[in-house]
Amino acid sequence: MSVTADDLKNGSVFLSEDERSVGIIDQTQLPNRQVYLNLTEAEEMYDAIKKLAVRGAPAIGIFAGYAMYVLALHEDAESADAFRASMQKKADYLNSSRPTAVNLSWALKRQMKVIEDHADKSVPELISLLKKEAVAIHTEDIEMCTRIAEYGLTLVKEGDGILTHCNAGPLATSKYGTSIGPVLLGKERGIDLKVFADETRPLLQGARLTSYELERAGVDVTLICDNMASLVMKNGWVQACFVGCDRVAANGDFANKIGTSGVAILAKHYGIPFYTLGPTSTIDMNCPTGEDIQIELRDPEEIKNMWYKEPMALGETKCYNPSFDVTDHSLLTAIVTDRGIVYPPFDVNLKKLFAEDQDK
Amino acid sequence: MSVTADDLKNGSVFLSEDERSVGIIDQTQLPNRQVYLNLTEAEEMYDAIKKLAVRGAPAIGIFAGYAMYVLALHEDAESADAFRASMQKKADYLNSSRPTAVNLSWALKRQMKVIEDHADKSVPELISLLKKEAVAIHTEDIEMCTRIAEYGLTLVKEGDGILTHCNAGPLATSKYGTSIGPVLLGKERGIDLKVFADETRPLLQGARLTSYELERAGVDVTLICDNMASLVMKNGWVQACFVGCDRVAANGDFANKIGTSGVAILAKHYGIPFYTLGPTSTIDMNCPTGEDIQIELRDPEEIKNMWYKEPMALGETKCYNPSFDVTDHSLLTAIVTDRGIVYPPFDVNLKKLFAEDQDK
Repeated sequence: MSVTADDLKNGSVFLSEDERSVGIIDQTQLPNRQVYLNLTEAEEMYDAIKKLAVRGAPAIGIFAGYAMYVLALHEDAESADAFRASMQKKADYLNSSRPTAVNLSWALKRQMKVIEDHADKSVPELISLLKKEAVAIHTEDIEMCTRIAEYGLTLVKEGDGILTHCNAGPLATSKYGTSIGPVLLGKERGIDLKVFADETRPLLQGARLTSYELERAGVDVTLICDNMASLVMKNGWVQACFVGCDRVAANGDFANKIGTSGVAILAKHYGIPFYTLGPTSTIDMNCPTGEDIQIELRDPEEIKNMWYKEPMALGETKCYNPSFDVTDHSLLTAIVTDRGIVYPPFDVNLKKLFAEDQDK
Repeated sequence: MSVTADDLKNGSVFLSEDERSVGIIDQTQLPNRQVYLNLTEAEEMYDAIKKLAVRGAPAIGIFAGYAMYVLALHEDAESADAFRASMQKKADYLNSSRPTAVNLSWALKRQMKVIEDHADKSVPELISLLKKEAVAIHTEDIEMCTRIAEYGLTLVKEGDGILTHCNAGPLATSKYGTSIGPVLLGKERGIDLKVFADETRPLLQGARLTSYELERAGVDVTLICDNMASLVMKNGWVQACFVGCDRVAANGDFANKIGTSGVAILAKHYGIPFYTLGPTSTIDMNCPTGEDIQIELRDPEEIKNMWYKEPMALGETKCYNPSFDVTDHSLLTAIVTDRGIVYPPFDVNLKKLFAEDQDK
């Protein structure tokens, strides 16, 4: 089965047509094979998260929502109490597949809360509520991505070149994704943007996923090695940089895939606006600055050996393999969120964004 | 046979012990296999250049020098005239293996000039002169690299971290190489420098060659992906950047491996000195600025497919794959040559460097 642009319309996770299994596009097989998996067993779901067949924080959350519904369908508990106890066990089990994935535990808890908040309901009624909640999680993510894409699209115009780094597209989220959302939304509206996708070493998310998503959506995408971004900018081909974010500090410093800070410095040098796009849930007002964000170090084998026919460096060669870096807020033109575009001074304007909450 | 630090002492090209063949370390086999080849036939020599078993402009020049001597040994021409005609044919044949390699044609012409300038000599005498000239080419390169290394070493101090991009080490030249020469010379003198080697996508010269050379020489080297340079600099681990150069314009702009300009911009941002190291023969006073340097575009397959077990992007994905970029002279702290260190203003000081020639 081949993937068309439509297949990724609502992301890489969906409820199967018979509504009895969770469907995913197996991201480990991309871009060479478009493999769909329909999962019904907790063990399969655990493995899918563990081996990154489903990846991207929002996508994992959506997956966990549907997973809880599908697992509930296959429950044979006779009482609501027994049902709740069994579901809690399954939620704990799924949660252990990737303990640091915040959206995973968030979605599982959200589904357990549905069960707990309706202790008076029958099992079939609970199952129906779980389905409703799963769809709500998915729909909310689609709406959030759509709003980010709408705001982002106001920052560019027909024919602009956009440079992006790593992947925060439909596969990792839903619908438009975050960083490339404006491009996909623009495409739907006949506003054509050109994208330069950094391949994003060592895990090559830009090559394997971003260029794949954009190619399938009919977007004019050009894949480059990370070290080519400077020349592409110098050539005058880039009018804006759009990147995702893993965590935004209260002063606007933000962590994202390794290499993001380098792109930001190049953009500043060439006078190109540099934006990070993400949901407000990514902004951590309890984290004062980027200094407070821990950088995960990963296996040197990802640099020396992974993907290759044979190793590209001696076994004894030391590697430094940080997963993320922190981009200083001074390099950032604006933060594009689902609630609007936040400009500097970020410390003041991010506070305002959240103060509006408390006013409501 | 395993390679030790000593093996690379005078580069990757040498005259065999019996002085009847050209020895090389087959660079296509590194870093996984240390394969030595002893070449006696013109066809083998042609192939070695063509398939990049011997690569790096100075190394190719040294190789061509020895090749002409070894081929002369196997000549059976009866007269000096017949000898010269036959050698010219072989030189033309070798030259066609990589027509754009300036050092190849330069070394072949230099050897042909030896033959032409000594039309009165016997064939055995000519062979002896060719050997002398081949050794001279090699020795001059060693001396030039040594002088560059000496000058470069004055710019750093014990314990400094050096970031380098691509490869211009002993494999590509002789003895110390250019960009990492100060590090290797420092090592010999007990001045330990730490090196961060960019892997240098897409051809991975930093991973396959630079980290290999430094590891074998006992230097503390850490391999990083190109996009990690920003974080490594931010961490305060880099006190100077040393890179090679393929062509330096009269105003100090210079072409080097793709990604070099990005490293220079990062270095400027973090306040780290950025040096290019190369022989004065690399400075082209007839080339006014970097604008006049053509950038070679290479096969997209190098980005999408080469080295990998399977392709990392869809077959239809467009790639931009420039081989070099031009670094603006405003980003350059100094040019380290075999005749000294040239500081800004480069347009004035490079003229002075060459004016000294004419004064002599």
